[in-house]
Amino acid sequence: MKKKFLNKYNSEKKIIDKFFKILNFKKQGTFNFENDAAYLNTYKKNKLVITTDTIIENLDFFENDPPDSIAQKIICVNLSDLSSMGSIPIGYTLNLTINSKIDYIWLKKFTNKLYHLQKKYNFYLLGGDLSKSTDVSLSATFFGKVKSNYILSQDKSSIGDEIWVTGNLGDSYIGYKILNNLNLKLDSKNKKYFINSYLYPKPCMFGYIASKYISSSIDISDGFYGDLKKLLKDNYGAMIHQKKIPISKKLLNLIQNNNFNKTIIDILSWGDDYELIFTANVKYRHKIIKLANLNKIKLTSVGSIIKKTGIYDDSLKTIKNIRSFDHFS
Amino acid sequence: MKKKFLNKYNSEKKIIDKFFKILNFKKQGTFNFENDAAYLNTYKKNKLVITTDTIIENLDFFENDPPDSIAQKIICVNLSDLSSMGSIPIGYTLNLTINSKIDYIWLKKFTNKLYHLQKKYNFYLLGGDLSKSTDVSLSATFFGKVKSNYILSQDKSSIGDEIWVTGNLGDSYIGYKILNNLNLKLDSKNKKYFINSYLYPKPCMFGYIASKYISSSIDISDGFYGDLKKLLKDNYGAMIHQKKIPISKKLLNLIQNNNFNKTIIDILSWGDDYELIFTANVKYRHKIIKLANLNKIKLTSVGSIIKKTGIYDDSLKTIKNIRSFDHFS
Repeated sequence: MKKKFLNKYNSEKKIIDKFFKILNFKKQGTFNFENDAAYLNTYKKNKLVITTDTIIENLDFFENDPPDSIAQKIICVNLSDLSSMGSIPIGYTLNLTINSKIDYIWLKKFTNKLYHLQKKYNFYLLGGDLSKSTDVSLSATFFGKVKSNYILSQDKSSIGDEIWVTGNLGDSYIGYKILNNLNLKLDSKNKKYFINSYLYPKPCMFGYIASKYISSSIDISDGFYGDLKKLLKDNYGAMIHQKKIPISKKLLNLIQNNNFNKTIIDILSWGDDYELIFTANVKYRHKIIKLANLNKIKLTSVGSIIKKTGIYDDSLKTIKNIRSFDHFS
Repeated sequence: MKKKFLNKYNSEKKIIDKFFKILNFKKQGTFNFENDAAYLNTYKKNKLVITTDTIIENLDFFENDPPDSIAQKIICVNLSDLSSMGSIPIGYTLNLTINSKIDYIWLKKFTNKLYHLQKKYNFYLLGGDLSKSTDVSLSATFFGKVKSNYILSQDKSSIGDEIWVTGNLGDSYIGYKILNNLNLKLDSKNKKYFINSYLYPKPCMFGYIASKYISSSIDISDGFYGDLKKLLKDNYGAMIHQKKIPISKKLLNLIQNNNFNKTIIDILSWGDDYELIFTANVKYRHKIIKLANLNKIKLTSVGSIIKKTGIYDDSLKTIKNIRSFDHFS
């Protein structure tokens, strides 16, 4: 939801503020449209977390992308939002708009992947809608459940909190670039690795697993620094050990072996990693690491929340050229 | 949701059956995708009703349609589904895809209408998503609340139940035809009346008001006979007093004054009336009429549920040429 309904630094954000914000009637569960998802107080001791995302041909995917990739993307973007709220998926509705190029084989591959992911993450399809238009597009609304005390948002960090990142960042960006004809020195195995990172993103469900130890969290859909900035919300700053930002060995090799005209900051401005950035009190460090190990989730402590607003490296210099991917403009 | 995810007599229904039905994991609240909406058992004594609909440029509305008409349509189709489930609206998410033709004035008019309707029907925007593409399209997912005992579905009619219809049918079809250059003898005031019926449909919220007396209900989005057929679900038949089917005086005049090459059955095959067809035990007749009067809702008893499957007139002849509007094919 955040990805498009509230990118703090682009024209979409302006449109939301100018026209749509008034429509939330100031209800608490909408987080003033400044969160990964919203909630309803439905269950007695739980909240129902609701998130929605649209993905569109020629913007979030392309005509010849495999149908199982498109299925994986619409599931991943939404599960990632549920995770960043500390919730576990229950179900979803799917509004699918197809065009005349979509045939039965496409539908079979697409729904097979949905089935597989539903089994894997344990949620079901509540209903939906099927239409025809020029471009293929998908809107999905997902429902998650979280104990009311453990619901996560983006604005509960405290000064001194450790900043954590799950998984590795940046692989998806390289995959996208390869598919868009960037010529890189890479063997076919490595090429495939990066392309698959882009085509088949995996949500990191650590938000639900560790929600009781997390103060704030956000999923990375618009780039590490851009999303970190949203988490800080002009209330706090962050000191980041840039060298600790987790990237795969394959990405490190690629940067070293290629005359690659991108700095790591550029790579980290892309998004689509669907890893989590979260903050936690340092006293929970061991519990968090234990949970990550138990669930085989890579976790890296990359910095801490500081009083001075802005994002700084560990020489306390402002990190420059931070950009956030804008899915809208 | 029904409108597109389950039109029993077209290719969309086949696609749903073939590819999507397996995805509901046979959960009760999905009604096997054969209902106006689904539900989650969230509240203790209530159910959360969930419905979703997409409307698309060149299919459900057209490029030069007023923005407030498009807002009214996306709200109406969803509120109508909530009503047919016996629920009252709480909130919704909105995924809006715009193109370069959409400007600030459009957005202002569009969101003003949303605001007005939210105030009128008392629900709020939970969140959403804003994208850009070739065609304008909108997906909305709506949430309603209903006491668990009073949730309505399409399959609880009994033999002998009275069949009721709210409001007047067919005006929207004429409006659509006028906008598509059907030449009718009509003064400008009457023209405007029909066009507005098409552009500004109003949901009938009687489902929530009378839910405790209703056995089954469906909203009319694909035409009276087509939707009645869905309600009967091959389990029952219906005997319909055709002359009682409620149409406005304006429509009656139009049929009489014009050499109009459509029978009333054709007009009733269009849909987009967003009135309700519901069934109820005859013992509730007076209570239902009282509630309708109290709420100033026009109500007409048009027939009854019979054992023999099929739809018959009151000479017990099969009503022929029944068609259902297919939004998909």
